[in-house]
Amino acid sequence: MLHHRRTKHCRECGTAVEYRVPADDNRERAVCPSCATVHYENPLNVVGTVPFWEDKVLLCRRNIEPQYGLWTLPAGFMELGETTAEGALRETVEEAGARFDLLDLYSIVNIARVGQVHFFYRAQLLSTDFDPGPETIEARLFSESEVRWEELAFRTVRTTLEHYFADLRRGRFGLWCTDIT
Amino acid sequence: MLHHRRTKHCRECGTAVEYRVPADDNRERAVCPSCATVHYENPLNVVGTVPFWEDKVLLCRRNIEPQYGLWTLPAGFMELGETTAEGALRETVEEAGARFDLLDLYSIVNIARVGQVHFFYRAQLLSTDFDPGPETIEARLFSESEVRWEELAFRTVRTTLEHYFADLRRGRFGLWCTDIT
Repeated sequence: MLHHRRTKHCRECGTAVEYRVPADDNRERAVCPSCATVHYENPLNVVGTVPFWEDKVLLCRRNIEPQYGLWTLPAGFMELGETTAEGALRETVEEAGARFDLLDLYSIVNIARVGQVHFFYRAQLLSTDFDPGPETIEARLFSESEVRWEELAFRTVRTTLEHYFADLRRGRFGLWCTDIT
Repeated sequence: MLHHRRTKHCRECGTAVEYRVPADDNRERAVCPSCATVHYENPLNVVGTVPFWEDKVLLCRRNIEPQYGLWTLPAGFMELGETTAEGALRETVEEAGARFDLLDLYSIVNIARVGQVHFFYRAQLLSTDFDPGPETIEARLFSESEVRWEELAFRTVRTTLEHYFADLRRGRFGLWCTDIT
């Protein structure tokens, strides 16, 4: 769901906030009645990769909620101080323990309903030895026919994999921009 | 600058937060010592357009800080509940009062230093009549030689315009991914 109205107290002074439309604005925001701080709540970016080896892609089986036990591309929330590419690289190291070269941005998926934008870069694997971190039960390569589509953790992952295997068949990779409603 | 450590009080209960690395994490976060809420601070997306008419682009002279009086492409912070494209469309209506067809995503600029990702879509103007909102002093078309490069408000705008006019000269538009340090 959309995480609106999740601010109850002012981050500056701790006073309980009120939701109202500030002057020179047209949306309700959490406003502090004491110190007048306006709290903006904005979409979050999720950054990850499509790591590939020959005709296979690397998927990670999640060791954490949400979607414990299901399969995902390595991805996670973008952090302050990094670029989308740096975040994608970091998440792929953390979750899959893979060695790879980061290639072009491949898939951008908007999920307005939950206030997220997902970015996936193609990543050319340099080895088939993986050393996944604590967030991953198992990291494994799957060809298109081996992917367990009903056991994928997220629709952003399904959409990106569908595009990827279609592009792999035609031998050409572009940038996909998809909206999930 | 990077807006880290800007959370002083817990958004759930108002208690003064402590900065420490939560269990199962590897970064310092604002953690509430009373209710244990962890406050993540993440990058923000800025969404806008390159509105064009023949060989000219539409720029808006800013009526607000920062960079009051300087020229920008129409753009602003992405809001919850919208896609990047919907946000780019909204900002172009609000700031320029332009009529246009939104085309493909054209430029993604990462500015890790300030924790932002900027998205610009190409927008084909349907009219040269503009009705800018209160954030804009004036909206005007500029050919490449008319652009006042030293009066541009932001480096993301400069970078995107440089790519745009180069692509216009060669007659082909792709997607540019640029990092500003």
